[in-house]
Amino acid sequence: MKMHLDCPECFVRQAIRTGQLLRCPNSVLWDLVKGCGTILSQIEHEFSPPQNAVALYDMISLKVGKEDPFYQLKKESTQQALALYPRLKEKIKNSADPLDTALRLAACGNVVDYGVSSDFDLMKEVEEVFNADFFHYEYEEFAEKLHQVDWILYIGDNCGESVFDRMLIEELGIPVKYAVRGGPIINDVTKEDAVDAGIDQVAEIVSTGCRAPGIVFDWCSDEFKALYDSAPMIISKGQGNFETLSDEKREIFFIFKIKCKVVASFLDSPLNSMFFGRTKTVALDPNGS
Amino acid sequence: MKMHLDCPECFVRQAIRTGQLLRCPNSVLWDLVKGCGTILSQIEHEFSPPQNAVALYDMISLKVGKEDPFYQLKKESTQQALALYPRLKEKIKNSADPLDTALRLAACGNVVDYGVSSDFDLMKEVEEVFNADFFHYEYEEFAEKLHQVDWILYIGDNCGESVFDRMLIEELGIPVKYAVRGGPIINDVTKEDAVDAGIDQVAEIVSTGCRAPGIVFDWCSDEFKALYDSAPMIISKGQGNFETLSDEKREIFFIFKIKCKVVASFLDSPLNSMFFGRTKTVALDPNGS
Repeated sequence: MKMHLDCPECFVRQAIRTGQLLRCPNSVLWDLVKGCGTILSQIEHEFSPPQNAVALYDMISLKVGKEDPFYQLKKESTQQALALYPRLKEKIKNSADPLDTALRLAACGNVVDYGVSSDFDLMKEVEEVFNADFFHYEYEEFAEKLHQVDWILYIGDNCGESVFDRMLIEELGIPVKYAVRGGPIINDVTKEDAVDAGIDQVAEIVSTGCRAPGIVFDWCSDEFKALYDSAPMIISKGQGNFETLSDEKREIFFIFKIKCKVVASFLDSPLNSMFFGRTKTVALDPNGS
Repeated sequence: MKMHLDCPECFVRQAIRTGQLLRCPNSVLWDLVKGCGTILSQIEHEFSPPQNAVALYDMISLKVGKEDPFYQLKKESTQQALALYPRLKEKIKNSADPLDTALRLAACGNVVDYGVSSDFDLMKEVEEVFNADFFHYEYEEFAEKLHQVDWILYIGDNCGESVFDRMLIEELGIPVKYAVRGGPIINDVTKEDAVDAGIDQVAEIVSTGCRAPGIVFDWCSDEFKALYDSAPMIISKGQGNFETLSDEKREIFFIFKIKCKVVASFLDSPLNSMFFGRTKTVALDPNGS
């Protein structure tokens, strides 16, 4: 999907919130506003939001003086999620349908706030999200497809969430190639982060070859594009990957929380609802993008 | 009050909404986004929002190719409000306290949406707003002051609203100087608009000497500043005037609807509530600006 007219103001909010998250002084926050202005003055509205977000987060890195501003937060998210790993594995093992449980948990991983204070709070949040209804849930189609293929390309999203991805991968029962960003951007999972989450123990980690917080084919490596084309089945996590893959003709199983009005309208689904399925099976709003 | 970190995203929204209001094609809307980017890249965060808004609306005029993009809308708002004039005058005349009724109606004038389809709908909206509670209403203090002075400086705000201002002026019983913007900006009242509303029949129309949608003393004429300094009593209509006069030491009676979170927080009052009174009498949030 292309940029929507609601996206520019969200870019401004993201720049300021990132600065606030990093406890930047007011002068730097206004510097981020100005930097965001320069980004907007050159915005490519034919690009997808994650494609434009690369310039935005490059600017943020420059203004806050950190190449990977989310480095520490990413490490902490992964550690927080890993602390829950034994309990969540138990939950999957004891469930009537471990694959279904692992899928729902993988969606939870995209939602929970790793900034909460304790394991107890995080586990409570996971349980709450786990019990939430999915607006869209294509489990049967997914399970059927899974039996027909011999490997899966699994496109990762954020840190912390990747621990939940690992648990799903452990239930898939076939080889998985886990795609990570080619370099640090926001809290997205890189190779180092995926190894932190233990993904290397259950899948082959591959890079998209670019830093975009989504799959921007123009910027991906030839190696990744070949992998994508040859993959018999694809799982895509998170909204950033969805925003860049929503117009793809091939079948992709998306798992994510609908976090903004633009995507909610595009999918004709409620804001904040959970989505698991292929876009082809939902009515798309042609004016949504 | 100075710019708040919530203001930049509102600037982006205002630029796009103005373009949409003027039925601009998508290409122009994205041009407005880019233009707004340039404005944000040079934003003066020590300025008040209305002071920065001048550059924003200059950019909008340039991009949409109209020196006064709201010209037609302003004319229509004034005509719509004038159509209600006889009924509202009757309402004031038949009320137990005509001054109180005229004050409440003047506040209504700042709120109603002149884009509604008929006089009937507009009158219905006026009645609804009229019956709404004010969060702050300093009627007694206002009436007392009114008896002590021999003229009033009344700072106008928007078109349409100015017809309601005229009805309040007709109840004040003393000479009024009605301040208008020095040139067209947004839907703010200019001399031509004030004459359209019949203000010239009840008050002396004076210009602030600048186009800002508020009172920016650095840019006002010496004549207006002298008038402001000598005024024994001031009524200020609308949020734009409030945003630029909120830090003034002198007594000003503000009448407006609190239309954004930033001002609501500054005044420690609910969003969308009606305000009539002096700032000195409300607890101000020192971190609100």
